[in-house]
Amino acid sequence: MPKLKGFQKLTFTYEALQTWFDALQIQRCRDTTIPLTEAFNRVIAEDVVAKEDLPRFDRSAVDGFAVRSEDTNGATQFKPLLFRLTEAEELQDTNHKQAKQVWTGNPIPKGANAVVMLENTKKKEEKTEIWIQAAPYDNVSRKGEDVKKGEVAVKAGTRLRPYHLALLAALGNFEVKVTEKPKIAILATGNELAEGGKERGEKQIYESNRVMISGMCLELDAEPLDLGLAEDNVDEIAEKIQIGLKIADAVITTGGTSVGGLDLVPDAVNKIGKPGVIVHGIAMRPAMPTALAALEGKPVMILSGNPVAAITGFEVFARPLICKLLGLPKEEPRCTVKAVMSRQISTVLGRKSFVRVKVTQKNEDFIAEPISVRGSGAISTMTRANGFVVVPENREGIAEGETVTVHMFADVETVSGSV
Amino acid sequence: MPKLKGFQKLTFTYEALQTWFDALQIQRCRDTTIPLTEAFNRVIAEDVVAKEDLPRFDRSAVDGFAVRSEDTNGATQFKPLLFRLTEAEELQDTNHKQAKQVWTGNPIPKGANAVVMLENTKKKEEKTEIWIQAAPYDNVSRKGEDVKKGEVAVKAGTRLRPYHLALLAALGNFEVKVTEKPKIAILATGNELAEGGKERGEKQIYESNRVMISGMCLELDAEPLDLGLAEDNVDEIAEKIQIGLKIADAVITTGGTSVGGLDLVPDAVNKIGKPGVIVHGIAMRPAMPTALAALEGKPVMILSGNPVAAITGFEVFARPLICKLLGLPKEEPRCTVKAVMSRQISTVLGRKSFVRVKVTQKNEDFIAEPISVRGSGAISTMTRANGFVVVPENREGIAEGETVTVHMFADVETVSGSV
Repeated sequence: MPKLKGFQKLTFTYEALQTWFDALQIQRCRDTTIPLTEAFNRVIAEDVVAKEDLPRFDRSAVDGFAVRSEDTNGATQFKPLLFRLTEAEELQDTNHKQAKQVWTGNPIPKGANAVVMLENTKKKEEKTEIWIQAAPYDNVSRKGEDVKKGEVAVKAGTRLRPYHLALLAALGNFEVKVTEKPKIAILATGNELAEGGKERGEKQIYESNRVMISGMCLELDAEPLDLGLAEDNVDEIAEKIQIGLKIADAVITTGGTSVGGLDLVPDAVNKIGKPGVIVHGIAMRPAMPTALAALEGKPVMILSGNPVAAITGFEVFARPLICKLLGLPKEEPRCTVKAVMSRQISTVLGRKSFVRVKVTQKNEDFIAEPISVRGSGAISTMTRANGFVVVPENREGIAEGETVTVHMFADVETVSGSV
Repeated sequence: MPKLKGFQKLTFTYEALQTWFDALQIQRCRDTTIPLTEAFNRVIAEDVVAKEDLPRFDRSAVDGFAVRSEDTNGATQFKPLLFRLTEAEELQDTNHKQAKQVWTGNPIPKGANAVVMLENTKKKEEKTEIWIQAAPYDNVSRKGEDVKKGEVAVKAGTRLRPYHLALLAALGNFEVKVTEKPKIAILATGNELAEGGKERGEKQIYESNRVMISGMCLELDAEPLDLGLAEDNVDEIAEKIQIGLKIADAVITTGGTSVGGLDLVPDAVNKIGKPGVIVHGIAMRPAMPTALAALEGKPVMILSGNPVAAITGFEVFARPLICKLLGLPKEEPRCTVKAVMSRQISTVLGRKSFVRVKVTQKNEDFIAEPISVRGSGAISTMTRANGFVVVPENREGIAEGETVTVHMFADVETVSGSV
């Protein structure tokens, strides 16, 4: 059957992505310096080198008494040794056993090289019993033990998790240079679309792709910008894409890309300028009619209007693009689980197929149940699924009982052991 | 050895959590209605029932020709059947084969029950050839196939992912009732702490816990509020906690909780009112000196000042608390992987131990390498790790080669197969 009518050929996903990226020479977005308190989840734009040791002095890791470790030799609970207490910055009296009380985080006095925990001591007026033998540097956080001066504490291209923020703060960084959030302008096209909350024609449906794609941008910490709706009109579409090119780092459209049917968005893109559409028709399922374009040096992604196809096109092309714009060294992986397919599924040879599944865990076993689907329009298949399986182009499906890697986009469901 | 000095007894983590929750009778935060466009990642506060079928009419899933399926019987590419085209809303002429051109999403005309894809047709002036036999409802998205009128489309307590937003939009919801973000007030205590960017005493260190705990709140979509720093002074600490109780749904403090040492924060909490501290001293490692309290019906969490202990205390107590405040039906699980321990680790019997590991994937194998640790102060152990393993109270460690479940907080590292 002439399935490819309208497309010269379908392009494999990895070829499509490479061709598009090569044409654009994508650079990460500009840098911006922001307070560390606002840097959660941002991508750091430069290596941060420790300006000092962390800790910058030997400090106590516990509450207790700082001592010379050799003075504790032979101490036990039944044969405690008695130490004189000092308030000085140094254990000066080398003729007597000396100790200084310290709290967690306090510097160790000069001459001391270990801390005995409070519970292994007993204070007696101006003295303290020590009940335990301490090895050198017991309970001491040593200077530079966490990070050494001159070491790279956080590498450029790191997504800042809470722990990176703590490390940066501890090293005295109260501002941080991060990559700006990529701005992604989003346009939905189609006469059949009505805006939520507004009047709706008898044959119209509420538009639902923009809020979804916005959410997918926010998941990656990109900034979605709404271009609204466009009717099936090349001039209107072109005009709105041009607004997007002015205000954003990339433009995503949905709808108007079926070859054979109305091919309005690719036409509009090619009308705006060169190179325009670079790839159209991808060897994948769903999302075959996806097109990738470049205008004014910026990427334009033409996604299908079917929500599941739009999601898949986003996953395969927008996700790596946004990671590149953010300055991440590689695409951020989704969490994956290995699961056993609960039943056979068929896919089309020569297309990379994205199969929605619901993964449940029962005891130690992960089971992937394919979500039954009619077409790529049913968005509830995505809210019922929690992950997808990628079936490569050289396979015709997955057998029942086969172990697959599931890319998760929601939590694994746990079921109790009792069937 | 008298390790428990100062605590009557250590409380198991699950008992501590239960006792604290029981004392507080935690309810989810108030509801608020917001535009759907701002609802990404929020937790929906009520079931959303479909007010109409989705789709609300039979519609075409493809670009093509709507037909009566029985009219296509026997059609092949070599023996095409000829159909008359109509622009009407109905295929009225039952004496002739009729077809109506439709685009993806268009309603199916009355009388039609299938759509033939464009590539299986050939238009000839006022007629079209049909090259393929269509079964009833081929390429038709049927009324209510995605969601039926009256069905619960999204359940109360669901974290709204991009796909839920799309489903809600498609069903005509442009506003949504969500739980307000829990407000968490955060106070760091300790004379040794200096504020980032400000002058610092010789023995002081830059405070780093607040920005980290803020980030951990943001990860769950709670709203952190900064109470700043307090010196080691019961009155100052009490005053700042009271501000927190006024402006927030919960208060988290760090530092000043070591029993035996200065026990300032528990003292300050007990000074404010009843019941005050409910549990102090948890059978876990790190984070043993964590205390859980209740004041004015609100939870107060007293975390250790050591960053890794603070993280662990947050993970075990603040995380389930925030999930409850958000109205999630259960604690949101972290992504987990099964990995093989690369070497033995020892833990203390009777304590739940949290072991930081770095998981790498090589081909199909996941290896968990314990991060070498001195004390719980070294925050770089968290930026070098990507997950943690929980060793239960009845174990003394994990053997080399044992398979463990790792709770991931950053991406698995992939190494190439060539070593």
